[in-house]
Amino acid sequence: MSAGKLLGVGVGPGDPELMTLKAMRALGRADVIAHFAKAGNASHSRAIVAQHLRDGVIELPLLYPVTTEMPPCSDGYRDAVADFYDGAAAEIAAHLDAGRTVAVISEGDPMFYGSYMHLHTRLAPRFATEIVAGVTGMSGCWSAAGMPIAQGDDVFTVLPATLPEAELARRLSDADAAVVMKVGRHLPKLRRALETSGRLPRAMYVERGTMSEEKMIPLAAKLDDDAPYFAVVLVPGWEKRS
Amino acid sequence: MSAGKLLGVGVGPGDPELMTLKAMRALGRADVIAHFAKAGNASHSRAIVAQHLRDGVIELPLLYPVTTEMPPCSDGYRDAVADFYDGAAAEIAAHLDAGRTVAVISEGDPMFYGSYMHLHTRLAPRFATEIVAGVTGMSGCWSAAGMPIAQGDDVFTVLPATLPEAELARRLSDADAAVVMKVGRHLPKLRRALETSGRLPRAMYVERGTMSEEKMIPLAAKLDDDAPYFAVVLVPGWEKRS
Repeated sequence: MSAGKLLGVGVGPGDPELMTLKAMRALGRADVIAHFAKAGNASHSRAIVAQHLRDGVIELPLLYPVTTEMPPCSDGYRDAVADFYDGAAAEIAAHLDAGRTVAVISEGDPMFYGSYMHLHTRLAPRFATEIVAGVTGMSGCWSAAGMPIAQGDDVFTVLPATLPEAELARRLSDADAAVVMKVGRHLPKLRRALETSGRLPRAMYVERGTMSEEKMIPLAAKLDDDAPYFAVVLVPGWEKRS
Repeated sequence: MSAGKLLGVGVGPGDPELMTLKAMRALGRADVIAHFAKAGNASHSRAIVAQHLRDGVIELPLLYPVTTEMPPCSDGYRDAVADFYDGAAAEIAAHLDAGRTVAVISEGDPMFYGSYMHLHTRLAPRFATEIVAGVTGMSGCWSAAGMPIAQGDDVFTVLPATLPEAELARRLSDADAAVVMKVGRHLPKLRRALETSGRLPRAMYVERGTMSEEKMIPLAAKLDDDAPYFAVVLVPGWEKRS
């Protein structure tokens, strides 16, 4: 018996209509659908594909370990996360060894900041793989905002809000267009960095772009500092429009 | 009679299967499908959607002016291009004023370096618009290459190969992951900038990712400097994998 194939399937930013035809067909041919979720939470990627799941398909939830008691840069945290991905890869490998096609569904695009990448690096040396590109979360956000993000010879950059304030400000000044991810508790710092770099007047705050609970507001008009981890801030380029 | 709606529809990187369900439905409800092409060339975006065009739909080709005799930074060039977008916007406005829904189809994502943006800025003040996000060309390329591009706290950047060599090298050194676009005749310069920044060993050259004529090769193994304008070079981040 030959081994099954591993599919890394991007399911887009949240609106189920932003799945690709190729992702739909991958769901149709997979024997096993694997999805990441936090323990105790529903999987976002599973919610996106829910209406397209085949009867009788095997579902494999991959539950991130609870690491809230550990400092996120500690060895203990890193080990817990690495052990989790090792275990998830072993579970998937057992299905692949049994000849099953396994689709790992990923919000956005699987190879762009996606958890799937941790499985890919562990499994691609041993099994055939196929990646189905997806619409990224950030594309969903700027499209929902009707915001042209970058044009022509613009330099575009994606920054994690976890960077130190001075580095955020430097990088925001050095790019024509930017998307800042993982905003959460970093919002006050990010706000200061945007002010220092002169980019605050153009910055747009977006939560859950393309989803039913979508929220967006110019950051300068947002009066509180409440932001979930997955909120993003968009800074459009293309300042000299023609 | 009320005016029609303008749809900016991303149709993905090239593989027609990488269109979204939402793009398909937008094609189904549009009275007019507009697509950009160079005069004398077939439209790439039209080729992507060809099998989904409705019988009787009105097609509106928007043909870029031939500007090869003009230096690309000259006033003459800028005026010719602005005139072209003004004219294209006027043609679309006439359909919208007549109550027709117009879908402008765009390769990749409409708001990410897309020609649609020039129409959007001209028409969005007057007409209702809706953007359908698409899979970007760069997502298509790194997925086709099976290449994880960015992870965790990576800084990711998109650079036009038109930048001066020293600036390319500086920016390649300053980012964890990068995509360089518009490679074409800039390949020798880009190669030197990648070498200076130490990123050449990880760089992957990709032409027409996800299309039938797809080509990819590690840049260090590419022996010639032939590259079309739309070729890209991918420099993956995530160097400390876990």
